Amino acid sequence: MKRFQVVGIGNAMVDVLAHCDDAFLVSNDVQKGIMQLTDLARGVELYSRIGPAQEISGGSAANTIAGIAHLGGRTAYVGKVKDDQLGAIFAHDLRAQGAVYETALAPSDHPAETGRCIVLVTPDGERSMNTYLGVTEFLGPDDIDVAMMGDTEWIFLEGYRFDGPDSHEAFAKAIQACKAGGGKVSISLSDPFCIERHRAAFSRMLKDHVDLLFANRSEILSMYETEDFDAAMQAAGAEIEVVVCTDSGNGVHIRSNRQSWHLPAVPTTVVDATGAGDLFAGAFLWALAEGHDLEACGKMGNIGGSEVISHIGARVETDLKAMFAEHGAI
Amino acid sequence: MKRFQVVGIGNAMVDVLAHCDDAFLVSNDVQKGIMQLTDLARGVELYSRIGPAQEISGGSAANTIAGIAHLGGRTAYVGKVKDDQLGAIFAHDLRAQGAVYETALAPSDHPAETGRCIVLVTPDGERSMNTYLGVTEFLGPDDIDVAMMGDTEWIFLEGYRFDGPDSHEAFAKAIQACKAGGGKVSISLSDPFCIERHRAAFSRMLKDHVDLLFANRSEILSMYETEDFDAAMQAAGAEIEVVVCTDSGNGVHIRSNRQSWHLPAVPTTVVDATGAGDLFAGAFLWALAEGHDLEACGKMGNIGGSEVISHIGARVETDLKAMFAEHGAI
Repeated sequence: MKRFQVVGIGNAMVDVLAHCDDAFLVSNDVQKGIMQLTDLARGVELYSRIGPAQEISGGSAANTIAGIAHLGGRTAYVGKVKDDQLGAIFAHDLRAQGAVYETALAPSDHPAETGRCIVLVTPDGERSMNTYLGVTEFLGPDDIDVAMMGDTEWIFLEGYRFDGPDSHEAFAKAIQACKAGGGKVSISLSDPFCIERHRAAFSRMLKDHVDLLFANRSEILSMYETEDFDAAMQAAGAEIEVVVCTDSGNGVHIRSNRQSWHLPAVPTTVVDATGAGDLFAGAFLWALAEGHDLEACGKMGNIGGSEVISHIGARVETDLKAMFAEHGAI
Repeated sequence: MKRFQVVGIGNAMVDVLAHCDDAFLVSNDVQKGIMQLTDLARGVELYSRIGPAQEISGGSAANTIAGIAHLGGRTAYVGKVKDDQLGAIFAHDLRAQGAVYETALAPSDHPAETGRCIVLVTPDGERSMNTYLGVTEFLGPDDIDVAMMGDTEWIFLEGYRFDGPDSHEAFAKAIQACKAGGGKVSISLSDPFCIERHRAAFSRMLKDHVDLLFANRSEILSMYETEDFDAAMQAAGAEIEVVVCTDSGNGVHIRSNRQSWHLPAVPTTVVDATGAGDLFAGAFLWALAEGHDLEACGKMGNIGGSEVISHIGARVETDLKAMFAEHGAI
């Protein structure tokens, strides 16, 4: 048995969650529903304008790994925070959930701070993310422990990390070690605009290394440069063993070995959409590592996604296994 | 018209909210339902044992002032944080709510950090607080702006601050300036154990200076050293113009000028009791400053308390004025 079922690599962030209306987004030049990168000055300025907030650990892949740890999975996370108060909060929340987290801290005299994401939640539950990457930008190959990567069934790569030049090399090192140990590679496309910024790198990664792809509808259309959803799924399926595409209220589409499944979403009231895809991936990966078939994995993924959008914040708050049982998914 | 309706003085804290069961409290020597002081080492140790948490600005009087600001009241807060990340969060959330907050920061090389309170919420919604005071302990008379204190209708003192020796002097300076300007003094007793620690100081304060007392049942019994609730209310009423005593599910008792009122609580599901008394006081003080009679103030106080216990965290999340209207209190 390998030490880990899933090791995630991504942007280590603390979320700063606040409510606002659509007019606030417009007057502050925030694009709705997507992730936009900000520098520290813009982040500070935006923070001074938003209302009272709540700080909750976030980070896309970190949310996924926290979900797997919540389910009792053997899991670890790699992502960089600083030796500061927000860094301590991030590390605490991941370890307290049961994940292994050993990435070296950026020292306290580093000019950047721990990354944070101002998440603006509109009344429709949609979230608009404003990310100051901070020290998480500096994740490089030295942060990859090849022994860890060689001793996991899956690695899970966060597409957002393509925004950091050193991280391409870190990903390459992790993939090599993982595959050498007999492990497999999964990735989340993260965001259609991130794909546009790094299309060639994503394209090579999917063709050469990825065994399991997580995307949502707009990401897979962007990736395969088409408006035709079925064509995108087919193109992805032609080069990747398992393709999993969430489609918000329409549930999830899975394609593998020329077979397809469509599993409807679990109805819930959307309070805050932050983390829906992350927790879908967490529940799906955990179920896969536990030996469930793809259909069962998709059902559990849908339940994970529905839990996290029913409250503020992108980390699980309810007993997910109990929810799986209630919905007859396990 | 005075610049402020209410100026609050208290412990500036960031709450670290986590769920746990009763067994966790026992095995970690946490006394249920009260506030206990911890040093930094104990705080760090306890933090390492709790599960994933959420960080939300807190502090008893700060919650009250945030509530008044939420209602559109003219209000300010005095309490000390450090020039660090948690201090920035605390200051942001208060100002973003519309309160004036100008207390000098403790410098970044101060050996203590911004105060924080590990709030452990059990399944019954009760909260057990573990407070590391940090730099808020160092609030002294130099932090009191006499011009501000002379230009407010009410000051609102947090009983917890009796735990800091320099703050007695700060309170005295604030009271003198406030009364000289024609303002009045309100206080919250905060906690029965805090009263036991500083009985003589509380007793002198109530006799000599306080015009409006906020307490809950266990606090007023502790203050007047009796088991007889009516006797405690009478004793308080004999020395204080208005006595307001919340009694959790039983609503609130008000006594003034030998008249009494009992107003039933607003039914709600208790998710997290943190801040119930603070928001009661906020809504009550705002209503009083707006010229409502004591009965109306009590009704609005009850609604404020019910809002804040219906969710995690001690700051208002719903439109309180709309709730006042719904309940016919305004």
